[in-house]
Amino acid sequence: MKINGISGGVTAAAGFRAACCAAGIKYRDRVDMAMLCSDAPCAVAGVFTSNVVKAAPVVWDKNIVQNVKAARAVVVNAGIANAATGPAGMAMCAQTAEAASKALNIPAEQVLLGSTGVIGPGLPMDRIAAGVNMMAGTLSDTPEAGTAASRAIMTTDTVNKECAVTFELPAADGSAVTVTLGGMSKGSGMIHPNMCTMLCYITTDCCIDQALMQRAVEDVVRDTFNMISVDGDTSTNDTLLVLANGLAGNAAITAMDEGYALFREALFTVCRALAIKMAGDGEGATHLMEMRVVNADTKDNARKLARSVIGSSLVKAMVFGRDANCGRVLCALGYAGVDFDPAVIELYLVGEKENLCFYRDGCVQAFDEEKALAMLSEKAVRFLCDMRMGDQEATAWGCDLTYDYVKINGDYRS
Amino acid sequence: MKINGISGGVTAAAGFRAACCAAGIKYRDRVDMAMLCSDAPCAVAGVFTSNVVKAAPVVWDKNIVQNVKAARAVVVNAGIANAATGPAGMAMCAQTAEAASKALNIPAEQVLLGSTGVIGPGLPMDRIAAGVNMMAGTLSDTPEAGTAASRAIMTTDTVNKECAVTFELPAADGSAVTVTLGGMSKGSGMIHPNMCTMLCYITTDCCIDQALMQRAVEDVVRDTFNMISVDGDTSTNDTLLVLANGLAGNAAITAMDEGYALFREALFTVCRALAIKMAGDGEGATHLMEMRVVNADTKDNARKLARSVIGSSLVKAMVFGRDANCGRVLCALGYAGVDFDPAVIELYLVGEKENLCFYRDGCVQAFDEEKALAMLSEKAVRFLCDMRMGDQEATAWGCDLTYDYVKINGDYRS
Repeated sequence: MKINGISGGVTAAAGFRAACCAAGIKYRDRVDMAMLCSDAPCAVAGVFTSNVVKAAPVVWDKNIVQNVKAARAVVVNAGIANAATGPAGMAMCAQTAEAASKALNIPAEQVLLGSTGVIGPGLPMDRIAAGVNMMAGTLSDTPEAGTAASRAIMTTDTVNKECAVTFELPAADGSAVTVTLGGMSKGSGMIHPNMCTMLCYITTDCCIDQALMQRAVEDVVRDTFNMISVDGDTSTNDTLLVLANGLAGNAAITAMDEGYALFREALFTVCRALAIKMAGDGEGATHLMEMRVVNADTKDNARKLARSVIGSSLVKAMVFGRDANCGRVLCALGYAGVDFDPAVIELYLVGEKENLCFYRDGCVQAFDEEKALAMLSEKAVRFLCDMRMGDQEATAWGCDLTYDYVKINGDYRS
Repeated sequence: MKINGISGGVTAAAGFRAACCAAGIKYRDRVDMAMLCSDAPCAVAGVFTSNVVKAAPVVWDKNIVQNVKAARAVVVNAGIANAATGPAGMAMCAQTAEAASKALNIPAEQVLLGSTGVIGPGLPMDRIAAGVNMMAGTLSDTPEAGTAASRAIMTTDTVNKECAVTFELPAADGSAVTVTLGGMSKGSGMIHPNMCTMLCYITTDCCIDQALMQRAVEDVVRDTFNMISVDGDTSTNDTLLVLANGLAGNAAITAMDEGYALFREALFTVCRALAIKMAGDGEGATHLMEMRVVNADTKDNARKLARSVIGSSLVKAMVFGRDANCGRVLCALGYAGVDFDPAVIELYLVGEKENLCFYRDGCVQAFDEEKALAMLSEKAVRFLCDMRMGDQEATAWGCDLTYDYVKINGDYRS
């Protein structure tokens, strides 16, 4: 399978345009709204927060993915989450979609919405509507427009997050056509996202059956966005949407064949890259943390074990302090809810050139503290656990727990 | 039921003596070992960490509770956890018990052990043995000896934790005798304990059947120690032990009668008080957090909901920052794994005189920010959730997330 990384994001695929503006939702002097628009109707797939409390735009988008099953545009605002806003919040969704419908001349029920920010307040609808009109007039298919949109949806993010790939699929006449898939995201997490919410929008010019695309999204998310955690808090707004407009000209993917496998691989590549970028940009983070579990008895257990370590406050604080107090990694595996024999497993710090074993035969091992310090001083700190039980593996990503996380979240509203 | 609070701790009940010493296990210039000893043989009950990785003293004590079912003494050290130490760690347990057996002239298999501190290193057996001998010669039944023991088992704790109560039970001749139950604890948690480990030792002169006492312990722990959380990390060493020597002279409790109910209530009172003290003394804490859930459909769901809020990093950081970003409480309820209708529940900040409603009818409510700030500035910050589904309730306790938590855990070993 050949997936080629290219530069760009949501405007990389044919027929997608983006815009952004400073609508003054909450922040001053910065862009805070983004719009995506496709020249042709799109199949749409998506997954959403598992939180019982769902923000209004999540309810809105779920209906489109499950019932309308088609979309033309996405409107996103940062600063206010439109969550815990009751029926008024749903009305704000309808008004926003109506404004985009008029400005873009598309059906309102094909306008997807996203919001991220503080829970509780309603949206300033006059500014939202003005923003929608402003953006509709400045849509562009340039890479710069995609990058600007990815910046507009940031909240406490420190860097914007984009990724795009191409791959080849056969056209109806058998000739090869290039298909592009690109995306942007903000925030940190899906199962365990930061309250500043994970939003991810992926666009592709691939022609693919909607149900198959939904299947691919649900499959891919398990080993990408669902394997990252910043702080264990699952937001009310988490949203991942994939829009496919079919303009690449490939023969439609309608079965789980080689073409589907290639599409899934491309989607996996982009989702994985965006997920890792989010984990490494967790609020206040100074390190990306990676936990790889190999030779577990089941895939699900491998995921649970990897996520448990990534979610441990004590491991996270240890990585921040560059303190090789590695017994904490063992402890976090122990409360993952997975049964295993502590005398059998082996634990390593992973380096560029060599791995450092710090636990084996039921005992914490003596190790070279200087080497460990060097490994813990890398931007990416990687742990490996060999369960020695089977052949399943999984990797989870997160970040360290820092003073800045406490600072950011101790005073988020002001 | 009449339970009377009294001063004191592990030496409050008749026939229990305590001692401590500075054995130099890891810390310098502070006491770091404690010993408890009963003048008469004790029935013993206990619960232990659910972590798959269990420290050697946990394995040792479990065997005594489940098989020996009798004990005479407890030896505890702070500084080193004797966890992830393999067969060598078990040998260290046997040697420690043997030293106490000789020094106290009691069976080695009736010596309970506890360790708390860093995972990995082995115990310095010469210093442990010297400490045991030193303590055996200075055992005392004074309140001061109990308090000194409670200080000796502290690690990152900032205050020692003791509690004691008395109640009346009938003697064999029908006359009333006073029964005493007292305890000491350190650390923060049981389901979600701080890595510095929860250890709790309770002594009583009550005469009670061992199986019934074990039942009472397992019952009481669900709404006390299992309802506190500091950081979501379940230690390898968590231990709660109850020793009953029968010296009060009450007619033995052998059925689930009024006497049992009174014993259970006394145990609950002491466990609850010690649990709240631990939650409020979580690493780096500046606030005790309490989350009370009322009118839930089931007791188990009430517990899950209360624990989810107490465990939320974002709620914890918000309490530290005294920022009434109360949507985070709603969000944490939403991912508790309990189904409910967000439009029905109501959320309050609880004050001495009045409660402040901040969520109702599906919407975050406007509230008096000054009143909220005053409530968030109290040492104890209390939230209340009315689920409006049934009649079950539960309360959980925790603490805020602070810079000092990160500092303490970023550099714990040094």
